[in-house]
Amino acid sequence: MSIAVIYGGTRPDGNTETLTKESVQGLEVEEIHLKDYFIEPIVDQRHTSEGFQEVKDDYNALIDRILKHDVIIFSTPIYWYSMTGRMKNFVDRWSQTLRDPKYTDFKDQLSRKEAYVIAVGGDQPLMKGLPMIQQFHYIFDFIGLPFAGYIIGEGNKPGDILQDQKALIAAEQLRKKLKEVIS
Amino acid sequence: MSIAVIYGGTRPDGNTETLTKESVQGLEVEEIHLKDYFIEPIVDQRHTSEGFQEVKDDYNALIDRILKHDVIIFSTPIYWYSMTGRMKNFVDRWSQTLRDPKYTDFKDQLSRKEAYVIAVGGDQPLMKGLPMIQQFHYIFDFIGLPFAGYIIGEGNKPGDILQDQKALIAAEQLRKKLKEVIS
Amino acid sequence: MSIAVIYGGTRPDGNTETLTKESVQGLEVEEIHLKDYFIEPIVDQRHTSEGFQEVKDDYNALIDRILKHDVIIFSTPIYWYSMTGRMKNFVDRWSQTLRDPKYTDFKDQLSRKEAYVIAVGGDQPLMKGLPMIQQFHYIFDFIGLPFAGYIIGEGNKPGDILQDQKALIAAEQLRKKLKEVIS
Amino acid sequence: MSIAVIYGGTRPDGNTETLTKESVQGLEVEEIHLKDYFIEPIVDQRHTSEGFQEVKDDYNALIDRILKHDVIIFSTPIYWYSMTGRMKNFVDRWSQTLRDPKYTDFKDQLSRKEAYVIAVGGDQPLMKGLPMIQQFHYIFDFIGLPFAGYIIGEGNKPGDILQDQKALIAAEQLRKKLKEVIS
Repeated sequence: MSIAVIYGGTRPDGNTETLTKESVQGLEVEEIHLKDYFIEPIVDQRHTSEGFQEVKDDYNALIDRILKHDVIIFSTPIYWYSMTGRMKNFVDRWSQTLRDPKYTDFKDQLSRKEAYVIAVGGDQPLMKGLPMIQQFHYIFDFIGLPFAGYIIGEGNKPGDILQDQKALIAAEQLRKKLKEVIS
Repeated sequence: MSIAVIYGGTRPDGNTETLTKESVQGLEVEEIHLKDYFIEPIVDQRHTSEGFQEVKDDYNALIDRILKHDVIIFSTPIYWYSMTGRMKNFVDRWSQTLRDPKYTDFKDQLSRKEAYVIAVGGDQPLMKGLPMIQQFHYIFDFIGLPFAGYIIGEGNKPGDILQDQKALIAAEQLRKKLKEVIS
Repeated sequence: MSIAVIYGGTRPDGNTETLTKESVQGLEVEEIHLKDYFIEPIVDQRHTSEGFQEVKDDYNALIDRILKHDVIIFSTPIYWYSMTGRMKNFVDRWSQTLRDPKYTDFKDQLSRKEAYVIAVGGDQPLMKGLPMIQQFHYIFDFIGLPFAGYIIGEGNKPGDILQDQKALIAAEQLRKKLKEVIS
Repeated sequence: MSIAVIYGGTRPDGNTETLTKESVQGLEVEEIHLKDYFIEPIVDQRHTSEGFQEVKDDYNALIDRILKHDVIIFSTPIYWYSMTGRMKNFVDRWSQTLRDPKYTDFKDQLSRKEAYVIAVGGDQPLMKGLPMIQQFHYIFDFIGLPFAGYIIGEGNKPGDILQDQKALIAAEQLRKKLKEVIS
């Protein structure tokens, strides 16, 4: 039992990363920082005669790494009330994977995992971050990935998150829960 | 009085583009297809000692073009219940522009324009597209750009949108409204 | 083929009623003004040993009338960003009907009808009314009633809605659609 | 410094009440169970020549009691993805109070208090309860009452909430926070 964390942010030691590390400390985790990889935005070829063309970038390798784990954590700062564009580009590409003959069991594999969202924002995230949570809900529903929970934290400057007691306690609870699942 | 359209999709003659063209037909429009430009995802340097570093890509040139117009239409297919990653990356960069000494009047300029959203999706967009509209609402509120309206259409295959009478009529109404504003 | 309209408002010739009448003009309609009936708020007896007790009020008679029709229109002014308390009390009672031996086929009957929502509000209803639409979506999903569409209008003073061209055109389109369904 | 709790539910020892009592245990609290009072649904007389007419029910007495406190907790089971009809009818009446010469400082008084929402639901409340939270956000924003936080719990049968560790810990945190504020 192991965990993949997909980071959508860019700051070293950003608030979202800090909160996420609190949540997975001491557990078996593979961390993927999307900023370190090259991922093309999707080109919608669902209805072209040839269908989707293979893309030469890091996307498939990341999917392969993620699929090895049992828990997937989407860790994203809230930029403009939603996940980062980087993370959105990653998710958008799922439309291609769903039609990729190399990944015919993509949905089936995801259905046996569970997903968490950890997100930190600066402008009333517990209110204005809710449409993003609803979108993750729709996304995971469509792809058949059980949505097991989320943590929303508040912060702007690096380190701010350490003042958000509620988020820190939620991270601690999540860690306990993940620990039980894993052991 | 003129209109900038920012396209977030990738398909030639996609449903969203078709619906948007219905909305602006015969009017003075500058069309910007984000897929034709190179835009880096934001690197959050809000709190670094040097602040944001200049990025060598097409972003600023696009901002300059958009700022010349009075109406901005955000035209995006609904990918995974939200705007496309391409468009999100474009919006994310506004955080940089807000702190860019070359754009000190960015918010002020936007406050004298008005924005529309035109979006087409395939999975109950009139329901499951609503969190995206709420996000645009928060986004425009934050940046001070008046949100003048939106059209949500339904379609998957190219051409589907031509069956969505409701969306087509809304596009026609929008065109009339824009025409009045412009003349 | 016929239509039941459930009105949640209280004003004679209120904006929501006006918009609704535009939508059903000339069609076979049974109008139910909740304000003219006595409906007890639900008492949650789902888990008491005796279960729900019969309530002596007008609720069941209204359900019987509604179930005779093929289309149900929920017509509510937007009070405080949601349906009126009166309409909410009516909906809340469905939890009782779902367990009422006299209505064992309640969900089954509803599944063969279709629902519309018509709502008018005064404070940015096209934005701030969206959580209400999402709730109707969840409500209709749970009860198995197909959600066929909605119209959101803007207005405060009686008569304001006649200035909302977009809502009026949507009402006209809905009327045409209903007419086709009925004939 | 003291707390008013407004209960919208009907079950003795229901899940929402249990979670709320955890949150305020040992603190100075005045509890108001809406089910024990008679509150008329609002009749919208905002634009009649006479304006709102006095209503003979328990509403004003409850408002008077609530206004004495510094913290207001809205404690409602989630019925059909929203607050109960009873609580909605109570909130709807604020439109009258806002125009009542006896309450000219209603908004002003509320602006110096803070509000919390505690809600328990049975159908994915952490996802499907979010539109309700957004509505409370809009409601409190409009009335000028600072929205200090919310807890969403999960449960159906009485006692279920005691299995929701996350909600219980959130209640404990809220109690600590309220205790600090009060002392």
